[in-house]
Amino acid sequence: MIRGLTRAGLGTIESNEQFISGAAQFGFQAVDLNPVHFIRQCGREKAAHLLESKGVIIGSIDLDVDWRSSEERFREGLKALAEAAEAAMSLGCFKCCTYILPSTDEAVAPFMAAATRRLRLCADILGAFGIRLGLEFVGSRHLRTQWANPFLWRMDDTLDWIETIGARNVGLLVDSYHWYTNGLTVDNLLKLKPEHIVHVHINDAKAGPIENLLDADRLYPGEGVIDLHGFLQGLQTAGYSGVVAQEVLGPSTSESMEELLARSKAGFDKAFANL
Amino acid sequence: MIRGLTRAGLGTIESNEQFISGAAQFGFQAVDLNPVHFIRQCGREKAAHLLESKGVIIGSIDLDVDWRSSEERFREGLKALAEAAEAAMSLGCFKCCTYILPSTDEAVAPFMAAATRRLRLCADILGAFGIRLGLEFVGSRHLRTQWANPFLWRMDDTLDWIETIGARNVGLLVDSYHWYTNGLTVDNLLKLKPEHIVHVHINDAKAGPIENLLDADRLYPGEGVIDLHGFLQGLQTAGYSGVVAQEVLGPSTSESMEELLARSKAGFDKAFANL
Amino acid sequence: MIRGLTRAGLGTIESNEQFISGAAQFGFQAVDLNPVHFIRQCGREKAAHLLESKGVIIGSIDLDVDWRSSEERFREGLKALAEAAEAAMSLGCFKCCTYILPSTDEAVAPFMAAATRRLRLCADILGAFGIRLGLEFVGSRHLRTQWANPFLWRMDDTLDWIETIGARNVGLLVDSYHWYTNGLTVDNLLKLKPEHIVHVHINDAKAGPIENLLDADRLYPGEGVIDLHGFLQGLQTAGYSGVVAQEVLGPSTSESMEELLARSKAGFDKAFANL
Amino acid sequence: MIRGLTRAGLGTIESNEQFISGAAQFGFQAVDLNPVHFIRQCGREKAAHLLESKGVIIGSIDLDVDWRSSEERFREGLKALAEAAEAAMSLGCFKCCTYILPSTDEAVAPFMAAATRRLRLCADILGAFGIRLGLEFVGSRHLRTQWANPFLWRMDDTLDWIETIGARNVGLLVDSYHWYTNGLTVDNLLKLKPEHIVHVHINDAKAGPIENLLDADRLYPGEGVIDLHGFLQGLQTAGYSGVVAQEVLGPSTSESMEELLARSKAGFDKAFANL
Repeated sequence: MIRGLTRAGLGTIESNEQFISGAAQFGFQAVDLNPVHFIRQCGREKAAHLLESKGVIIGSIDLDVDWRSSEERFREGLKALAEAAEAAMSLGCFKCCTYILPSTDEAVAPFMAAATRRLRLCADILGAFGIRLGLEFVGSRHLRTQWANPFLWRMDDTLDWIETIGARNVGLLVDSYHWYTNGLTVDNLLKLKPEHIVHVHINDAKAGPIENLLDADRLYPGEGVIDLHGFLQGLQTAGYSGVVAQEVLGPSTSESMEELLARSKAGFDKAFANL
Repeated sequence: MIRGLTRAGLGTIESNEQFISGAAQFGFQAVDLNPVHFIRQCGREKAAHLLESKGVIIGSIDLDVDWRSSEERFREGLKALAEAAEAAMSLGCFKCCTYILPSTDEAVAPFMAAATRRLRLCADILGAFGIRLGLEFVGSRHLRTQWANPFLWRMDDTLDWIETIGARNVGLLVDSYHWYTNGLTVDNLLKLKPEHIVHVHINDAKAGPIENLLDADRLYPGEGVIDLHGFLQGLQTAGYSGVVAQEVLGPSTSESMEELLARSKAGFDKAFANL
Repeated sequence: MIRGLTRAGLGTIESNEQFISGAAQFGFQAVDLNPVHFIRQCGREKAAHLLESKGVIIGSIDLDVDWRSSEERFREGLKALAEAAEAAMSLGCFKCCTYILPSTDEAVAPFMAAATRRLRLCADILGAFGIRLGLEFVGSRHLRTQWANPFLWRMDDTLDWIETIGARNVGLLVDSYHWYTNGLTVDNLLKLKPEHIVHVHINDAKAGPIENLLDADRLYPGEGVIDLHGFLQGLQTAGYSGVVAQEVLGPSTSESMEELLARSKAGFDKAFANL
Repeated sequence: MIRGLTRAGLGTIESNEQFISGAAQFGFQAVDLNPVHFIRQCGREKAAHLLESKGVIIGSIDLDVDWRSSEERFREGLKALAEAAEAAMSLGCFKCCTYILPSTDEAVAPFMAAATRRLRLCADILGAFGIRLGLEFVGSRHLRTQWANPFLWRMDDTLDWIETIGARNVGLLVDSYHWYTNGLTVDNLLKLKPEHIVHVHINDAKAGPIENLLDADRLYPGEGVIDLHGFLQGLQTAGYSGVVAQEVLGPSTSESMEELLARSKAGFDKAFANL
C-alpha cells in the first residue's frame, strides 16, 4: 500500500508544489489534489515533472459534480467532468471519489432514483478515461439525523447500491473513521473483493462511545483509539495495494505543515509497521 | 383504445373461458389474465383459439415476481418469469404490470436500490420476449402511512424512477383512481409521451375529499365522480391506443358476473363516447 | 410535422442569421445548426430571440464526437459534449444525430463493441439534458464496399442495435434517400413506434437502379423519383410529428440561397400536401 | 489456486459420483459439472453431501443458453437459466462460462449487437444469484476461417467487449491453449486485474507452429510445450486464486478414467510445483 495525503489536517498549504515537496520529504508517495487547477497553474508538463521528480503520484481526485441537489446543478457539474477526468488521466491518476451523506432533506426514494442515475453517468464518463469512482460511506452517527430523512451509511448497503448503479468501475472509498464509527471490524474488510476498494482514507478517533464521535473532530493516525494496523492489514488481505490517504478533519491548528507532516509520518510508521 | 377487463369487480368468475366469453358478450375486447395458468388448463392452442374466436386479446399480465421483500423471494420469482413471458408472448400479449406501494417498512434508500435493480432485471427478461413493463403509481392517501416509511407515489417521480431503471421497455400503468387521488389533471396526461404509457386501468371514485378515499372502495366506471371521459381523452391525445382495463377493487357483491358486466359496459359506453 | 432545413443544399450561407431569416421567409419552421457556434457568435439571449422572432426552432444538432476511430479522439469529443448539449437545451433543441457508415476499415466485432459503448455514453450524457440521439442508417450501396468490411445499414439492424445500446433516448434518424436506396417501403415505416423516430431527413433521388445511386448525388425534394408524400404519410401514421429537415447532398451550384430555398419550398409544398 | 477437472479428457465417466470420487482420489478439489442434472439425479441434499464428503467443489457451470443463433433459441435457453443458476448456487458454485467462436456465418455487426445484448441479460440473471460469467476467447487459428466472417479472438478485444457488455460480474475464462495459440505471454496475464479472471482452463499443446494447432488436438498438462508453470504463476500474480480446470479436447482414448486421472495428476504436480 502507498502512503498518501489529502490537504485535510495539514494546516495552510500555500501551493501544490509545497504540498508535493512536503509529502515527499516526509516519505509520502501520494497526494490527493485537483488536477485541473494544478495544470492551469503550471501546465501539464511541469505538473507531471514535479510529481515525477519527487516520486509522488496523485492518489485520487474529488468528484466535482453536485449529484445531491438539482438537475440544473448536476448538469452544470457534468460540463467540467470530462475535462477533469482527462486532467487526472494525463497526470497518471485513475481514481475519483465522493462521499454519501447519511441523511437528506429530500424525499428519499426520488432522491435515490436521481442519485443512482447521476452517479451512474459520472461513473461512465470517468470510465471512458479509465478512472474508477469510489463512494465513501459515512459512519458519524450525528449525521444520520442532521437532515430530515435517513439515507444510507452502512458498508453493505453501499456495496448493494454499487450493484444497482451497475457500472463496472464503481467501488468503495473505505475511511477508517467511518469503518470505526459504523462499528465494523476487520472481518468486514476481509469480505471485500479487490475490485470493491477504490480508495482508502486513514485518520483516528477519540476515545468514548462511537455514538458521540463528531465527523469534524478526528485525530491524526496513531493518536487515537482505532486499530489502524488491523484496518490496513484487513484491506491488504482483501487485495488492496493502492493509496492510503490521510484525511484529518478537525479543528484548525497553529502548527506548521512540517510539524503536522511529522505527526502524520509518525502515525503512518506505526500503522504501516510489519504490513 | 380497447375496452378491457380485469377480474377485479366481476364477482366470482368460474373459468377463463367464462371470463373471455362474458367479456366478448358485453363488448369488451381484452381481458387481463394469467397466461401460464390458462395454457396449463387448456393447452396453448385451445387457449389461443378461444381468444381468437371471441375476438378478445390479453391486455396485460401481472408481474409475478416479488421484488419488494427478500433476495430469496425475488430469485424464486425469477425462475418462473421467462416462462410466464413466453406464455404471454405465445398468446399475443406484450404487456406486464406491477404496482408500487406508497410506503414501506424497509429502510427506504436500500430498498430503492434493491427495487431498482430487481425491476431492471425483470424488465430485461421481459424485453427478450418483446414485453413491456408498466409500473403503477398508487394515489390512495392512506397507503402513504400504512407502512413505516414513505416511498413513492407521484406520477412524475415514477417517470423519473423509470429513467433510472433505464430499460427501454418500462413505462407507466395509469389508473384513473390513482390519477384522481393524486390530484392530477388532464394536463398531466398530455405531458406524457406514447412510450410512457404501457397500460391503463379504469374505475371510479366516491364523492368527498380525495384524502379520504380508500384504495379498496372503488366504484364502477361512470358511477362516481372522476372525469373518466377527460381521462381517456387525455391519454388518447398523448398517443395511447391500447387496452383500458376495468379494475374495480371494492367490497364483494352478490350480483352475478353478467349483472356486473352490464354495469361495466354502461360505464364504458359513457366514458368512451365520442373519443 | 414541421418543415425544416439543414445547410446541405442551400449553397453559401453567410451566417446563422441569414439561414434563419431565409428559412422563415420561405415557410420553414426549423433549421439544423450548431448551437455552440451560434451562441458564441451572438450570445445565448440574442440567439434565442432571433429564433423566436422568426418563429424558427432548431431541429437537431450533430453529434460532434468522433465515435468511429480511436479512444483518444472519442475522449477529446466527450469533453465538449455536455457543453453542446447545454447549448442545444438552452435554445430549446432536444435532438442530436449521427450517421452510421455502412462499412469500416476496422475489424468489425471489436469496432462494434467500441461503437456500442461510445454511443451509449453519448446518449446518456445527452439524456441528462433531455436530448434524444438519432442514428441514421445509410442506404447508398457504394458505401457498403467503400471500406474493407461491411458494417451495418439496414433499418431493422439499426433498431436492433438501438436495443443493445439500451439507452431510452436513442432512436432513428430516417432519411428518405436511405429509406429509398435500402429498398424500403411505406409498410416498413408503419412498423415503427413513435419513440423509434428521433429525426427525419428529406431529399430526392435520380431515376435508375437504386444500386447505382451515389450518396452525394441527391436531388431536391420533388425533383426526383422518391414517393416523398408516402414517406411522410408513413412517418405521420407511425406517430411522428417532429421536424422533417431537407438535406440535399449534391454537387455545388451557382444558384443563390434564395433560389435554392424557393426550389426547396416547392418540393415541400408537394410532399406535405394533404398530410 | 484449486486443482480442477472438466469431463473433457477423462474418457467415459459413468456418473457424477464416479467423477467426484475419482477427482478426490487423485487430489483434485473441483469438478465442472451440470448442477441441474446432478440435483435431478440424486437430490440437492445428497449432491451437496457427496461433494462435501469428498472435499470437492463445483468449479464452474456451462452457460446452457444458445446466444449465437436465433432469438427463439435464445429465449428457449433463458427459460432454464434461473433454475440452473439456483442449482449452482445451492451447491456453492458461483461461476458460469461460455466460449466465443472466432468466426461466424452471421453478418458480424448485427450478430455482435445481438450477442452483446444476450450475454448482458445472461450475466444479469446470473448476477441475481451471485454468479459470475466467464467468456472464453479461442486462439485456435483454423477456427478464424471456419465460418464465413472473422469475429473475435484476442484477449484484449474480449476485455474490451466485456466493458461494453457492462455487467459487473463478467470476466474472462483464460484457457492455456488459447493463451498459447494466440501468441500471448506471461506479461499479458500480469496486466489482468483480479476481477478480470472468472475461470481458468489448463491443457497442453503439441510442438510446431501455433498456426497449425487444432482445437480438438490438445494434450494433457505437462505432456506438451506450453509453459504451464509460467501460465499459472502469471495468473496467481494477477490475483487469481480460484479453480484451474483441466479440459483436454482430443481424440478419444482407450485408457480408463483412472489412468487418465493419473496422467492429469502428474501434469498438475509439475505445473503447480512451487506456486
